Amino acid sequence: MKTTKIIETAFRDAHQSLLATRIRTRDMVPIAEEMDKVGYFSIEAWGGATFDTCIRYLNEDPWERLRLLKEKITETPIQMLIRGQNLVGYKHYPDDIVEKFVEKAYTNGVDVFRVFDALNDIRNMETTIKTAKRQGAHVQGTISYTTSPVHALDDFIDLAKELEALECDSIAIKDMAGLIDPKDIYELVTRLKEQTDLLINLHCHCTSGMTPISYYVACESGVDILDTAISPLSWGTSQPPTESIVAALRGTKYDTKLDLKRLNHIKKYFEGIKEKYSSLLDPIAETIDSDVLIYQIPGGMLSNLVSQLKKQNALDRYQDVLDEMPRVRKDMGYPPLVTPTSQIVGIQAVMNVLGGKRYKLVSNEVKEYMKGHYGKPPAPVNPKIAKRIIGDEKIITHRPADDLEPQYEYYKELGEKEGLIKKEEDILTLTLYPQVATKFLKGEAVEEELEPSKIQNIEESEVA
Amino acid sequence: MKTTKIIETAFRDAHQSLLATRIRTRDMVPIAEEMDKVGYFSIEAWGGATFDTCIRYLNEDPWERLRLLKEKITETPIQMLIRGQNLVGYKHYPDDIVEKFVEKAYTNGVDVFRVFDALNDIRNMETTIKTAKRQGAHVQGTISYTTSPVHALDDFIDLAKELEALECDSIAIKDMAGLIDPKDIYELVTRLKEQTDLLINLHCHCTSGMTPISYYVACESGVDILDTAISPLSWGTSQPPTESIVAALRGTKYDTKLDLKRLNHIKKYFEGIKEKYSSLLDPIAETIDSDVLIYQIPGGMLSNLVSQLKKQNALDRYQDVLDEMPRVRKDMGYPPLVTPTSQIVGIQAVMNVLGGKRYKLVSNEVKEYMKGHYGKPPAPVNPKIAKRIIGDEKIITHRPADDLEPQYEYYKELGEKEGLIKKEEDILTLTLYPQVATKFLKGEAVEEELEPSKIQNIEESEVA
Ligand SMILES: [Co+2]
Ligand SMILES: [Co+2]
Repeated sequence: MKTTKIIETAFRDAHQSLLATRIRTRDMVPIAEEMDKVGYFSIEAWGGATFDTCIRYLNEDPWERLRLLKEKITETPIQMLIRGQNLVGYKHYPDDIVEKFVEKAYTNGVDVFRVFDALNDIRNMETTIKTAKRQGAHVQGTISYTTSPVHALDDFIDLAKELEALECDSIAIKDMAGLIDPKDIYELVTRLKEQTDLLINLHCHCTSGMTPISYYVACESGVDILDTAISPLSWGTSQPPTESIVAALRGTKYDTKLDLKRLNHIKKYFEGIKEKYSSLLDPIAETIDSDVLIYQIPGGMLSNLVSQLKKQNALDRYQDVLDEMPRVRKDMGYPPLVTPTSQIVGIQAVMNVLGGKRYKLVSNEVKEYMKGHYGKPPAPVNPKIAKRIIGDEKIITHRPADDLEPQYEYYKELGEKEGLIKKEEDILTLTLYPQVATKFLKGEAVEEELEPSKIQNIEESEVA
Repeated sequence: MKTTKIIETAFRDAHQSLLATRIRTRDMVPIAEEMDKVGYFSIEAWGGATFDTCIRYLNEDPWERLRLLKEKITETPIQMLIRGQNLVGYKHYPDDIVEKFVEKAYTNGVDVFRVFDALNDIRNMETTIKTAKRQGAHVQGTISYTTSPVHALDDFIDLAKELEALECDSIAIKDMAGLIDPKDIYELVTRLKEQTDLLINLHCHCTSGMTPISYYVACESGVDILDTAISPLSWGTSQPPTESIVAALRGTKYDTKLDLKRLNHIKKYFEGIKEKYSSLLDPIAETIDSDVLIYQIPGGMLSNLVSQLKKQNALDRYQDVLDEMPRVRKDMGYPPLVTPTSQIVGIQAVMNVLGGKRYKLVSNEVKEYMKGHYGKPPAPVNPKIAKRIIGDEKIITHRPADDLEPQYEYYKELGEKEGLIKKEEDILTLTLYPQVATKFLKGEAVEEELEPSKIQNIEESEVA
């Protein structure tokens, strides 16, 4: 009998969503062996924002984290999230860097690569996918799920078929805002199972509160793998709770066969972790935000918007910016709202409202976007707006990374000259984050202090 | 097409679960008209712990609250939770009191009575049900859901049939700990729909995290009504979020047809309420506790246990008490763990562990229970334990309330003599809570102060 497989996100997406990606390696290692015994499909533990955070805030070598976890996690595949040609950064890198990075990620311990692109532009995923396949890894091609007047289900099915043609092993449906509802997930998964031979993996955040139901309906539609987070790091802007999903499926045709007692033991450990890191926890991130159901905008974007407007003393324009966001998104050809497009759309919407006139001020990112440098938008951009923004500058239609010169040798030489390179991986770290990595590789980075738990603060102040 | 109906619990169970039942009437009235327009099946707004809390902590007349809400809520039925022969108290009352209370609840504005008994003993529900039916109210008979070696599905079906024979209009499945899983809810609802002609209503708390899925599967099984709470007062020990359930069912065969924009407006109001009352909010109540999946014990019981043991400096016996609870419950014939049996079992388990020997110390409530004064336990009690506890004292097998003399005239006279009675309802208030009500009716009660929001405290201390 088929069992539903579970990916545990505690070491990557869950703490990225709730604790600003700040869990230290030394707080992961003690529970890693126990997690290895559960029987997860994989443990997501690398990529996304973890790389950047390690060198910027934690004075930790991300490659070292990967190796340490790999020593403890010997049975369960380790999974990473990789932003296609952006790797774990925020811009395109040339192919030589992409290839080297994927090779080194694999040899240091990544078994499963989940590859996505914010525009669902397969050209931005291709080098990553092919390189990972060459290593012998399990490769997940990703559909960045979104809704818009131009996003028909057919487009997602077509993308899945293209990913299958690239020999991906599975398809991940990545639903950043928990927007996918039971009706749509049923149709999407059913058709993916009919029209591809791949494993289908659903990855949702709980922002809208619908996600547990969507997970169940995905099971009814034939989904193979679900992403969940151990309960102390679940819900809100994170994934659904592992134990609850395991318990809910128990005794049904979709049983995961995972052991709840073992999960309970792991849960106890993460309760301690959550308390330890609670100063980083925004209580709002832990609860659902049903606004997403009205505005179709990820919860994180809304809270970013509030703090941006506060800084500029313009909180009274909140509703105006909220109304402007979908218009900017439309002008840009309806990109899915995920890193980095969510930030680009959000910032431009603020500029349009506070600038008094739309596109009077334009961010560099929007200029680059309009010139095709992020890839092909899902729908054509608004030609009048594009004209106003970039004038007669050339719009490229080829793969953006085709314009990039190789960089590996340059950074190798530079790094060696400065005495920064102790191992090949350091060259990649330097290439991805030249400034931050220089400081880190010089040994000048300092681990950010972890503030004491707010919960404790309150108790202490009550005692005092 | 059939639509799924929604009961909004914000004014009763949701704040009872998350905010110690402390929301004031003056914070309900401003949003009541807006809620009236939504199209809920009913708004739960009275009964349970609200009555007690009004007179004990808020210096509010519960009857006045009901009338004020009824003025604003003119289209939507108002619902109350009533503990069968216990009404809104913690012990059996004689039939004359039950009848008067139900009559007055009806004439003051309750349209739907949800009647339950902690032992599922229908004799304890009968007078309440018959009186409410006589008024012309909609009456819900309740199954207090629990799992145990003696609780077969058949028993719940039999209870439902008995409730139908008493002319109940609907059956509520009351799942206090969110223990019901998709597999069991499917079977239970399917059989209830097959074997009765009644509307079926599912009422769950989210403690285990499975509830949204169980709600969906209940829809697939033919459920008619779901209890939900507007999102700021949802999840954890409360109900699933209204907006998320409405959104998840949209476009499916189980669509509620409620307007998400209107709900969003109501949600904004309750965000303010939640902040206002946040000093009362235990963050633990807001998150799920997957321990319930292992111990089958409601979340509230576990946190009570912790604070009880802390007080007695015996937190190291936590696991022992946890192991003792199911044994006590077994000795007592597997009562469902709901008010008041949850407290009785919990306290006895602590006594058994800390007393050094089981049942060396025995609470009065357990003695009464063993003598049959709470009603008929689901399974026979442990005869050896019963013998040890009550010796040769008589065990009754008739309906406990049959032993109770009428009390209305007694309290009428008493109250009038002391000048406490301004309206008939005051006699009932006095009968239910003689001590607390005397103080309240004398005008000597003082509204508890609401501490400022903890969230604000932190911000201020950061500024300072
Ligand atoms: Co994610
Ligand atoms: Co309840």
